[in-house]
Amino acid sequence: MTIMVQVKDGAGAMSHSKPDPAKVPGLTLEDISVGDRFSGGAIAVTVDTIKAFAREFDPQPFHTDEVAAKDSFFGGLAASGWHTAAMTMRLLAEFGPHVAGGLIGGSCEVAWPQPTRPGDVLHVECEILSVTPSRSKPERGTVLMRTETKNQRGEVLQVLTAKLVVPRRK
Amino acid sequence: MTIMVQVKDGAGAMSHSKPDPAKVPGLTLEDISVGDRFSGGAIAVTVDTIKAFAREFDPQPFHTDEVAAKDSFFGGLAASGWHTAAMTMRLLAEFGPHVAGGLIGGSCEVAWPQPTRPGDVLHVECEILSVTPSRSKPERGTVLMRTETKNQRGEVLQVLTAKLVVPRRK
Repeated sequence: MTIMVQVKDGAGAMSHSKPDPAKVPGLTLEDISVGDRFSGGAIAVTVDTIKAFAREFDPQPFHTDEVAAKDSFFGGLAASGWHTAAMTMRLLAEFGPHVAGGLIGGSCEVAWPQPTRPGDVLHVECEILSVTPSRSKPERGTVLMRTETKNQRGEVLQVLTAKLVVPRRK
Repeated sequence: MTIMVQVKDGAGAMSHSKPDPAKVPGLTLEDISVGDRFSGGAIAVTVDTIKAFAREFDPQPFHTDEVAAKDSFFGGLAASGWHTAAMTMRLLAEFGPHVAGGLIGGSCEVAWPQPTRPGDVLHVECEILSVTPSRSKPERGTVLMRTETKNQRGEVLQVLTAKLVVPRRK
């Protein structure tokens, strides 16, 4: 699937520079529409960052040892899926929608179609799937956002569909 | 919901010591049954570990700054949901099922019913929900596992439902 990227803050498509926060006031539910897209980022994944994360949070041989990884399901060193998820969050904090009050997810679905490898450079491409005011809490609503985390070859490493808590305009 | 815990490796319920890997041969699909339970762990969450993870992966004020966090959605410093997920993976690597070839998830659902706070001590309680041989790949199958990450008061901080890739017996 090819996604045409439109960046709300006026930066170029596939922006890899940090947006100027002053240009991006906090978005409320009323500012977000189905089909809105956000993108950007360039996190370089290395053997060292893969191993450092894995030693702390996912100490399995295919994440910590190149030699052992060769004989594993992954056929070589691969980042923990949770490392890919954490790097995705880093990219979303910078390049995702600048929601008033912050980017807060209550739940999500995550899939890892292929492993993240040393040498990959990650960016995110986000699309708003739904915008739903809360029935019980008039001050907020839920935004469903799909985020693809891709490497420099456009290969999809992670698909995240997250329910974000977004305040309504006061 | 109260979960009665039975630990397959023979350790006591709610074991907080690392199981002896020699006692736990790698499990294949045939070794895993619906209703099997696994549990254990004791990861202490601190202000410092919350901030360190957040600075690297989720640099939002409610994860990095106690003062700013007071006026946020969370009402005080809270761990990134991805930090809770990463700590859960650490606990699963030690206390989850010792699957032959490692604990490998292809996709999952995650919910964070309440935030992880400084002072929380995390453990996991897992239950096998389904065991399904692959139709197309005779050498493996899928295990659906639900994992609750709880603190020392038994409060559920995260619910993870993951599809694990599990090899069949050769």
